[in-house]
Amino acid sequence: MRLQILVASIVAVGISASAAAAPADEPIQVIKPAANINLGLVDLGKKLYFDPRLSKSGFISCNSCHNLSMGGTDNIPTSIGDKWQQGPINSPTVLNSSLNLAQFWDGRAADLKEQAGGPIANPGEMGFSHTLAVQVLETIPGYVREFRQVFGKDKIDIDQVTLAIAEFEKTLVTPNSRFDQWLLGKTDALSENELAGYTLFKESGCVACHNGEAVGGNSFQKMGIVEPYKTKATAGGRADVTGKDADRFNFKVPTLRNVELTYPYFHDGAANTLAEAVDIMGRLQLGKKFTDAENAKIVAFLKTLTGDQPSFALPILPPSSDTTPRPQPFSK
Amino acid sequence: MRLQILVASIVAVGISASAAAAPADEPIQVIKPAANINLGLVDLGKKLYFDPRLSKSGFISCNSCHNLSMGGTDNIPTSIGDKWQQGPINSPTVLNSSLNLAQFWDGRAADLKEQAGGPIANPGEMGFSHTLAVQVLETIPGYVREFRQVFGKDKIDIDQVTLAIAEFEKTLVTPNSRFDQWLLGKTDALSENELAGYTLFKESGCVACHNGEAVGGNSFQKMGIVEPYKTKATAGGRADVTGKDADRFNFKVPTLRNVELTYPYFHDGAANTLAEAVDIMGRLQLGKKFTDAENAKIVAFLKTLTGDQPSFALPILPPSSDTTPRPQPFSK
Ligand code: HEC
Ligand code: HEC
Ligand code: HEC
Ligand code: HEC
Ligand SMILES: [Ca+2]
Ligand SMILES: [Ca+2]
Repeated sequence: MRLQILVASIVAVGISASAAAAPADEPIQVIKPAANINLGLVDLGKKLYFDPRLSKSGFISCNSCHNLSMGGTDNIPTSIGDKWQQGPINSPTVLNSSLNLAQFWDGRAADLKEQAGGPIANPGEMGFSHTLAVQVLETIPGYVREFRQVFGKDKIDIDQVTLAIAEFEKTLVTPNSRFDQWLLGKTDALSENELAGYTLFKESGCVACHNGEAVGGNSFQKMGIVEPYKTKATAGGRADVTGKDADRFNFKVPTLRNVELTYPYFHDGAANTLAEAVDIMGRLQLGKKFTDAENAKIVAFLKTLTGDQPSFALPILPPSSDTTPRPQPFSK
Repeated sequence: MRLQILVASIVAVGISASAAAAPADEPIQVIKPAANINLGLVDLGKKLYFDPRLSKSGFISCNSCHNLSMGGTDNIPTSIGDKWQQGPINSPTVLNSSLNLAQFWDGRAADLKEQAGGPIANPGEMGFSHTLAVQVLETIPGYVREFRQVFGKDKIDIDQVTLAIAEFEKTLVTPNSRFDQWLLGKTDALSENELAGYTLFKESGCVACHNGEAVGGNSFQKMGIVEPYKTKATAGGRADVTGKDADRFNFKVPTLRNVELTYPYFHDGAANTLAEAVDIMGRLQLGKKFTDAENAKIVAFLKTLTGDQPSFALPILPPSSDTTPRPQPFSK
């Protein structure tokens, strides 16, 4: 308890900037458009991201669970995987995930490239293997050509696959939210109500964990500092990676960019609405019960964090050839 | 048997045009780009086509089984529906489906609008109901606004939903295939081998059933005229609609436009490759066993029927609100 209160007060540090201050002083920074992007790699990665042939069933692609039409999530509490298996945890958005200090709720992947190998071979997600995925790609003439063009090599390997997907994901940043416009000096980009929500967000201490470009994503924090979080989910959080007891129930703080789109909330997807999530955060992380009016103001502010969604033509995938191993949607 | 041979010879009628003839005389016509399209309706229909919230699980959209990245099909023998149920029949392409004389393999829907209501309420596909789908849409402010704009009415109903989807589908035509370029006079658009394949396709009698703009889609024909087709699938074909014994195992002749992309083939999805499908067609429909060289020529011709795939930005869907009924992916 003592430790928890200590954490809660550490958390309250650094919230002196007021809403009227110059953007540079704000705890939230403007999102920059993706830079230094290899366009050939992005184009290939985009195809792979949308290609269900990287799954055993031929039915599930990255976009199935991180739907770019829906904020880069599936908007269900826990994901549906191969054979309709129920996943253990909520699918986080891929939007702005390049800004994360590490990938997954418990940070077990260092970066996007390392992450991208996971779901393909996860029996509960795409249910395939790296060897089989590469075998499929190698029999698709359109891919063989494009991999050769991009990598200048004759053989496709899984490193190339994950590198391309990661490069595509780097483009999935969402600049130009109304909040960023305000940060950049467009003072009428936010309403008075939204601005009041931002002030509350700062003064209540939310910015201690949700700050920076992604408004989160840059630290692991305990879920349930002041009051424990009750959940049926079994994820141990950061402790599953470090093995340290102190890290139990620590999760990567989710980005609040586009949080209007990434319902339901929390690692177990148990909170259906932003109002609910804000209420829980106030009570469990800060020991603060917001009035309905305060809650609504914070929610109004959070909705100003929705940025420009990635805009690109639906990729057209190269067809399989006669020798491409066929998907196994119903085999044991 | 006598009847079957009779049918086979009827089928051989009208194949006098030679490959060198003027385009106007050819049994296959150029695909025209979609005309008289209501753009507001198309844009709304596109969103609905990609929206998994029209399914019970929140996971399956029209695009799941008619993936516009993959020739408007799912490229698996029979579809995966709600809760991973195995469907009874192969998912036909939605590309150029506006050219069909009727919809579904057995033609039980008169047109695209009538068709579009089916999958939403089919327990084996999207597993939802029209009432529930409309209820979901009515709680999504972005949709409420857009439906009002497009239809000028205050209430959303299922007729508007299916009308919009059908209008979007009308845009899914694929002009500009190399074959159409050839038809339009670009004589070097086809190789000698491909042209020889076309000649074979005409002279063997394939064009009796596969003709017109869509190279199919304009008649019901018996599968297995000369020799019966063996399948584990239980579809009765057109007889399921008319109740007439004579219509047993009659199916709508599939379009051969983009057939390179719509593997596997036949209503049961049992033929993995075009070579296999062509071989079966020759033997079962025409009593003709093609040599490997002939088969390869026809396949080469068929691949010239791949047209420009629909090109548009991935639609961004309006977010659910706090009152939107949540998907039920795992409930009984
Ligand atoms: C069956 C659903 C499913 C599929 C398919 C899937 N993911 Fe995920 N993804 C998840 C879930 C659930 C998590 C969270 C897992 C965890 O944290 O333990 C996740 C986590 C991630 C993350 C980390 C985001 C963060 O903030 O920590 C990224 C990035 C990601 N996925 C990208 C991909 C890519 C790329 C693919 C395809 C190669 C893919 N996903 C396929 C469900 C899925
Ligand atoms: C001590 C750190 C900390 C503080 C303070 C904090 N949060 Fe969080 N926040 C987290 C963590 C960790 C999670 C993820 C918890 C989980 O999923 O189990 C989270 C999740 C959220 C979510 C859900 C995001 C999603 O996509 O699931 C919202 C919304 C949110 N916080 C808003 C707030 C608001 C508003 C405040 C202030 C009232 C606040 N947070 C204070 C650490 C913090
Ligand atoms: C679960 C898979 C699945 C889903 C979801 C699905 N379809 Fe289909 N679709 C099929 C199958 C299988 C058939 C063939 C059924 C038959 O002929 O009996 C079909 C047939 C069609 C046809 C007729 C094509 C032809 O040539 O006869 C059209 C058009 C179509 N679907 C459009 C849609 C639209 C629009 C939606 C969404 C509202 C949709 N489908 C959702 C699997 C699906
Ligand atoms: C008597 C009518 C008839 C003739 C003649 C005919 N077909 Fe077909 N074709 C059909 C029907 C009906 C189907 C659908 C059968 C099924 O799915 O069970 C079909 C299916 C196909 C398919 C698979 C399309 C798909 O998407 O599943 C191909 C390829 C094809 N035909 C090519 C040919 C070729 C090549 C010839 C000549 C050698 C030919 N057909 C002659 C009626 C005919
Ligand atoms: Ca979420
Ligand atoms: Ca097919």
